[in-house]
Amino acid sequence: MKKNIITISREFGSGGRTIGKKVAKELGIMYYDRDIIREAAKESGLNERYVEEYGEFSPSADDRFAYSFVDYMEEGNSPVLRLWEARKKVIREFADREPCVIVGVGADYILKDRRDCLKVFLYADEETKQERIRELYGDVVLRDKNRIHNMDVRRSINYQYFTGQEWGKSKNYDLSLNSGSLGVDKCADIIIKAFED
Amino acid sequence: MKKNIITISREFGSGGRTIGKKVAKELGIMYYDRDIIREAAKESGLNERYVEEYGEFSPSADDRFAYSFVDYMEEGNSPVLRLWEARKKVIREFADREPCVIVGVGADYILKDRRDCLKVFLYADEETKQERIRELYGDVVLRDKNRIHNMDVRRSINYQYFTGQEWGKSKNYDLSLNSGSLGVDKCADIIIKAFED
Repeated sequence: MKKNIITISREFGSGGRTIGKKVAKELGIMYYDRDIIREAAKESGLNERYVEEYGEFSPSADDRFAYSFVDYMEEGNSPVLRLWEARKKVIREFADREPCVIVGVGADYILKDRRDCLKVFLYADEETKQERIRELYGDVVLRDKNRIHNMDVRRSINYQYFTGQEWGKSKNYDLSLNSGSLGVDKCADIIIKAFED
Repeated sequence: MKKNIITISREFGSGGRTIGKKVAKELGIMYYDRDIIREAAKESGLNERYVEEYGEFSPSADDRFAYSFVDYMEEGNSPVLRLWEARKKVIREFADREPCVIVGVGADYILKDRRDCLKVFLYADEETKQERIRELYGDVVLRDKNRIHNMDVRRSINYQYFTGQEWGKSKNYDLSLNSGSLGVDKCADIIIKAFED
């Protein structure tokens, strides 16, 4: 079936945004990542900074405690759930509009029933990820090992929290690529090959 | 780095041999799967039928009980260990000889330190795998749900037994492909794209 959408989920530092932008450019289609978070912020009526913070990451320990009260969740008062609903709406709208690449933000799960969606997961060895993080964010971030580790842990918790699926499990994707061993350009080429008719 | 070898590990019914043969044919390189088992049989001096049975699968429960005696293993008297050593030797020789595709037989692990080796894992949804098993082996095998399930379980145990790695974990491969959603031809195209310079 002809594909229209590419979702890219990725480990922090594996080059997801670089690869996603390259793929979108070469295919001449739209590219989204945080734009969707901004749209979701407007949609949900929540503060944009709050939304950026919680867009892809798990609620803090305090929030999780609060959300463990199911009644509270069911009443729809939870800002995290409001954000998730807004994000689903926005991602579906973006995907309906025109062919695009969407990096992160749980798009793979939200669009899982669309057969015209190619779902990609990117990962890499620690050394490659650290090198990339140094290049993009500098040594300060790189030295904060805890923060780097937390990025993926919080992404993973957030993903599981909303989707009930395990983040990064290859069964949930059409293809999983090791950007460390394959390299950024080769990953982009492979994704384009998988996307083509 | 230029690749010379492609190893394909796969779930039973995901089309690994069909895809592997297609890739080898299109690239004009050698294809191996059970040939290696036969060579290993000669090399190990073990009975060929025994080798076919234990080539990719875990020892039976009785054997595992026997092999749990470390001394026994260390003495090198275990036929399963003799087979594993013979297989390593044969696979390395085949890989040194000329560019090739090797399906199964733990080649991904045995050649893991070769940077010119592209490591692929193939999986598929249950429906696709059952359809393929029916086509290749008929309804009799398909009805034997236990046997089908056991194929992957025994492969997985055998793999973990010798390699200490988890079978099918995407981190151990360069790329993992869902042959159910992508289809056999597309998987072959993607592997060729990943293999090319």
